[in-house]
Amino acid sequence: MLQIEYDGTNYCGWQIQPNGNTVQAEITKAIKKLTAEDVVLNGAGRTDSKVHAREQVANFHTLTHIPPEGIARGLNTLLPEDIVIIGAREMPLEFHARYSAIGKQYSYHIYHNKYRTALYRNHSYHVSYPLQIDNMEKAAKMLIGRHDFKGFMTNKSSVKTTEREIYAIDFHKKQDSIWIVFRGNGFLYNMVRIIVGTLVEIGYGRKEVVDIQKPLILKDRTKAGHTAPPQGLYLDKVIYPLTH
Amino acid sequence: MLQIEYDGTNYCGWQIQPNGNTVQAEITKAIKKLTAEDVVLNGAGRTDSKVHAREQVANFHTLTHIPPEGIARGLNTLLPEDIVIIGAREMPLEFHARYSAIGKQYSYHIYHNKYRTALYRNHSYHVSYPLQIDNMEKAAKMLIGRHDFKGFMTNKSSVKTTEREIYAIDFHKKQDSIWIVFRGNGFLYNMVRIIVGTLVEIGYGRKEVVDIQKPLILKDRTKAGHTAPPQGLYLDKVIYPLTH
Repeated sequence: MLQIEYDGTNYCGWQIQPNGNTVQAEITKAIKKLTAEDVVLNGAGRTDSKVHAREQVANFHTLTHIPPEGIARGLNTLLPEDIVIIGAREMPLEFHARYSAIGKQYSYHIYHNKYRTALYRNHSYHVSYPLQIDNMEKAAKMLIGRHDFKGFMTNKSSVKTTEREIYAIDFHKKQDSIWIVFRGNGFLYNMVRIIVGTLVEIGYGRKEVVDIQKPLILKDRTKAGHTAPPQGLYLDKVIYPLTH
Repeated sequence: MLQIEYDGTNYCGWQIQPNGNTVQAEITKAIKKLTAEDVVLNGAGRTDSKVHAREQVANFHTLTHIPPEGIARGLNTLLPEDIVIIGAREMPLEFHARYSAIGKQYSYHIYHNKYRTALYRNHSYHVSYPLQIDNMEKAAKMLIGRHDFKGFMTNKSSVKTTEREIYAIDFHKKQDSIWIVFRGNGFLYNMVRIIVGTLVEIGYGRKEVVDIQKPLILKDRTKAGHTAPPQGLYLDKVIYPLTH
């Protein structure tokens, strides 16, 4: 199992694609160089183009005798500077980065200032209009719990169920930054970004606080707000049962 | 007077150079486009290649009738995304961004982890070995006050005096980050980076705490540590008398 930090700015997301660089492709290539093996690298979550990860998790099966710490160090010398292996462990054979996961934490960074930002341009969503953050927090509270989040999903991937449970949505404000931290058992495609877009529209009064419930009740994507841009989103960590 | 935030990663520093992009050149070009004037843009400090600014200050003389807020907004539409004007004010004619300044604050970001960082690769100095941060703090305290900092200067520029006063050096630790914040009446060429390099060598025991005094007493650059890399350094703000 690899724990991976990456800056998504220059990638077409996690998953290998025919055109464009991806994080999964870079790591798979590096593993091939290190072990001479063609492995299948299972990621815990498919982050989109420009989305970052503080601790993505992936696993692969290998016959190599290199110890995990050596795999981490070896891969880091082969990987580009915007991808780093920050941990490696041997796991039980049945471990699967995606199917074994029981939860995830994402953070979203809103840069709230009348001027755009140079330093965080690839790492935040710039919002220049006034925001009633307390209204955003009230609306966010209404999403906590187990719901059908179909209305907060981009209808692209086929999933067995659109029911998910959100454990917590926490706001942290520091100077011009608003960080919104989401914890849940799983998130649908674009779910965090659509929730953030909806919260922002509530924050500046384009929508009412209670409007957050319309996509939940009607299960209709058009009742939610815009999809907040990818560069503000971070996959913070993936949670596994203690048995792993 | 312009207040300017920039990401120094892709620039050869502040000051206009015959070869290579500089922040001063970009802003001067944008002013020309906005006002049709060829202005001389005086910066408060010449940041080096890859050094960042949260609030650099610069001034120029103009005959334009565009109000300051309009200048800021206009320049921001013309400037590249890694440079932003975050404030503009009309000042008394005698104001000079460099000569009127009475102090400066710089921050330095050390990323302290056995693995390198993807997310902060252009915005921190990666140190992987153990650091005794309390020893670094003790040594830093010995630099507070008025001293001849010749031993902490890269001997390149000619300055009238190498005496400077440091008001404070504060450490802030947060997870893997160590931020060192310097306030003083002015800083010599590479002074903050050489102090940080020396503190890091003290932190990992290559030098003793008291060794920080050798460059002060002997005024000899070779008694100080290495010059910490530029990408960890931020010009935070420039301080002017209240009369401005």
